[in-house]
Amino acid sequence: MMKSQDSQSAAFRPQDFAPEISRTDLELASRNRGMPLEGLRYDRTPVGLHYLLNHFDVPHVDPKSFRLHVDGTVQRPLELSLGDIQRRMRTSRTVTMECAGHGRAFMQPRRISQPWLHGAVGTADWTGAPLSAILQEAGLRDETVELVFTGRDQGCQGGEEQLYQYSLSLDEATNGNAMLAYEMNGAPLQPQHGFPLRLLVPGWYGMVSVKWLDRIEAVSSPFEGYQNRSYRVRQSPDDPGRQVERIQVRSLMIPPGFPDAWSRRRILKRSDGSDPVTLSGRAWAGPVPIARVEVSTDGGDRWDDAQLQDPVSEFAWRGWTFPWLPQPGRATLLVRATDAQGNRQPLEIPWNYEGLCNNCVQRIEVDVE
Amino acid sequence: MMKSQDSQSAAFRPQDFAPEISRTDLELASRNRGMPLEGLRYDRTPVGLHYLLNHFDVPHVDPKSFRLHVDGTVQRPLELSLGDIQRRMRTSRTVTMECAGHGRAFMQPRRISQPWLHGAVGTADWTGAPLSAILQEAGLRDETVELVFTGRDQGCQGGEEQLYQYSLSLDEATNGNAMLAYEMNGAPLQPQHGFPLRLLVPGWYGMVSVKWLDRIEAVSSPFEGYQNRSYRVRQSPDDPGRQVERIQVRSLMIPPGFPDAWSRRRILKRSDGSDPVTLSGRAWAGPVPIARVEVSTDGGDRWDDAQLQDPVSEFAWRGWTFPWLPQPGRATLLVRATDAQGNRQPLEIPWNYEGLCNNCVQRIEVDVE
Repeated sequence: MMKSQDSQSAAFRPQDFAPEISRTDLELASRNRGMPLEGLRYDRTPVGLHYLLNHFDVPHVDPKSFRLHVDGTVQRPLELSLGDIQRRMRTSRTVTMECAGHGRAFMQPRRISQPWLHGAVGTADWTGAPLSAILQEAGLRDETVELVFTGRDQGCQGGEEQLYQYSLSLDEATNGNAMLAYEMNGAPLQPQHGFPLRLLVPGWYGMVSVKWLDRIEAVSSPFEGYQNRSYRVRQSPDDPGRQVERIQVRSLMIPPGFPDAWSRRRILKRSDGSDPVTLSGRAWAGPVPIARVEVSTDGGDRWDDAQLQDPVSEFAWRGWTFPWLPQPGRATLLVRATDAQGNRQPLEIPWNYEGLCNNCVQRIEVDVE
Repeated sequence: MMKSQDSQSAAFRPQDFAPEISRTDLELASRNRGMPLEGLRYDRTPVGLHYLLNHFDVPHVDPKSFRLHVDGTVQRPLELSLGDIQRRMRTSRTVTMECAGHGRAFMQPRRISQPWLHGAVGTADWTGAPLSAILQEAGLRDETVELVFTGRDQGCQGGEEQLYQYSLSLDEATNGNAMLAYEMNGAPLQPQHGFPLRLLVPGWYGMVSVKWLDRIEAVSSPFEGYQNRSYRVRQSPDDPGRQVERIQVRSLMIPPGFPDAWSRRRILKRSDGSDPVTLSGRAWAGPVPIARVEVSTDGGDRWDDAQLQDPVSEFAWRGWTFPWLPQPGRATLLVRATDAQGNRQPLEIPWNYEGLCNNCVQRIEVDVE
C-alpha cells in the first residue's frame, strides 16, 4: 500500500505530503463532513448527513440579486435570475455523489488535502433545470469544445488565488444528464450545498458539480484551470496522468454491532448463537449498474455473494444484504463490488500522487462477544 | 496552557490522553461535525451546518411504534406515542447549543475524546412539548430528586456498555425551560439530531439534551451514570470536580478574507486602503445575557468594544460587529465576551482533565495584502 517506486522520482516533492495527522487535518475533517456509515441505511441521505466538501468558505449569495451568466462562444448570452431558471423545464434525479478524494487518508504517503477516510458519499433527490436546455437557449457556436463553470467560492490553492472553477466537455454538458440544481431532497439548497444554484453532473465525482454557480462560459479551447489540473490520477507532479471523471465502483457496509465511543472499536453481542446477523450496505459505480456484491467474513479468504436490492435509480446506489452467523472472537469483514463492465474493487490501495479514486475494499474489524 | 502541576499527581493516567492526532481523531472529527465559522452569519443555523456530537451510532427509530415511557417515582406512569406528545401543549424556543468539549483539541495534553477545535455550536428553533407539563401529568412523588433521561443510542465508553443517559435535577426539569423536542427549524428532527424525540435544555451544554429519548425515570437518589460522572471539570481522575451545566461565556468571529484551501491560512485583500472591513460574529453565555464584546486587532495589546446587535432570543447568541482598518502584514485578531454576571473569557486555556468548558478567546491570524 506504499507508493510505487516510480513515484520516488526527483519530481516527488516531500512538502506535498502530510507527515502525520495535523491540527489542520482536524479542522478540515470537522468542516467537511463525511456521512457516518450508519447513514447507508437511507435510500436518500438526510441533508445534514450527506457528505460535504468545500475547498473554500461557504459564500453567502443573495437569491434576489443573483444572476446566472451564460456567455463565451454562444450566439445569445444569457443573464438569468433564479426565478427565470425555476420557470424553465424542471427535472429531478436521484443521484449518488461521491468525493474523488474519498479514502485519501488511507494512502501512505498522503497528499496534503482533505483527509477523507470513509463516508465521502451521499444520495439525494436533486431538482433543477436541464443544463442542455439552457445551453440550447444560448446557442453554442460551432467552435465550442468545453463549458467552464464558475462558483462564488473564493480562495487560494496551490499558490493560485481563484474562484472555484471546473470544466465539462461539450458532449457531457449536452447529453441531457447534467442539471442546474436549486433543490435537494425537495427543499431549496442549504448554503453549504451551493444555495441558490449549483451544477449537478450525475455519475461523476463531485468536483465537477460546481456550487454557488454564477457563470457558464463556452470556450473554444480546453480549459486549464487549477482544479482541472489537480483532479488527475498521476504518479508524480509532472505526470500528465488522467482526468478524474466518472465515479468508480465501490461498496460500503454499515459497521455491525455498536461502537466504543472514542476508539470506534466495534463490539457485537450475540443475543443467540443461532441467529444470523444481517450485514447491509450500498454499492455504486457512477453511471454503470452494479452487477455483483461479495462479502468476506474471514478477512478475505472466502467471498460469498450478497443479495442485491433494486437500484434506487439509474445514477444511485444499490442496497445489498448478507446473512452472517458470527462466532466469538475478532472477525474481519470485507465487501467488494463489481460493476456491469467487469470493474471490481481492488484489495490493495491504488496509490497516486493526489490521493484520488481510492476505491479499495472496506475492511471492518468486529469483536464478537 | 499546559496542565497545572497538580495534575501531575499519581492519579494522572497517560493512557487517557492522545499523544498526537490519530486516524481515530480524523474519524471522529468527520462524523461529528463542527459548524464552519462562516455559519456564524446566520441567526438560525441551517440544519446541515449545526454542530453535531453523538457518542455512539445514530440509531434508527420507527416513529410509528415509538413510545416514550415516563416512570420511576411517579404517581401515574405514562406511555406516550409521538402523536400523544405532539397533541400536548406546543412550545418553541430559539436556542444556542454548544458542546461542553468545544475547544478540547487546543488543550495539551488532550483527553482522548471528541477532538473539537472551534465550531461546536449552533442555534436553532426547537419545538416540542414542555417537559414540566409531561412531568406534571405523571405526578412526581415527593421523594423525587432527579429525572434520568435515556436515549436509544448504545455503545461502550470507559469500559462500560451503556445506553446514553443523563440526569437533570428536579428544579431544572420543572422550571419550565426544558422541552421534549420533535422539530428543529420547523421540520421533524433529522435522524442525527435525535428523531423522533429529544430532550432540549436551553442554556445548558449539549450533553444533557439526550437524543432519541425514549425513557424518563424519576429517581429518589442522585443518578451516577457514566456520562454524569464524566462531564465534570476536574484536575485528575480522582478529583470529584464540578458537574458541567450551564454554557459559559464565549464569542467567535467569522474569519475575514478567504482561506488557503488546505492550510486554512487566511488572506485578506485590501480593495482600498481607506475602506474598513467589518468584522462580525456571535457571543453567548447560556441563560445569561451578553454584556460586552471586545475585539483586539493587534494580538491582545489593545481592546475595543464591538457593537452589539439585539439578542436573537433569551437563550440564543447575540451578533456583534467591529470596523477594522487592516494594514498590510500579518494581523492577529481576538474577540472576548463578558456576560451580565461579569464573567469574561480567559486569555489562557483553562486546562482540565476531561477537556471541558474551554472558553479561551479565539485567535485568528490573517495575512493582509
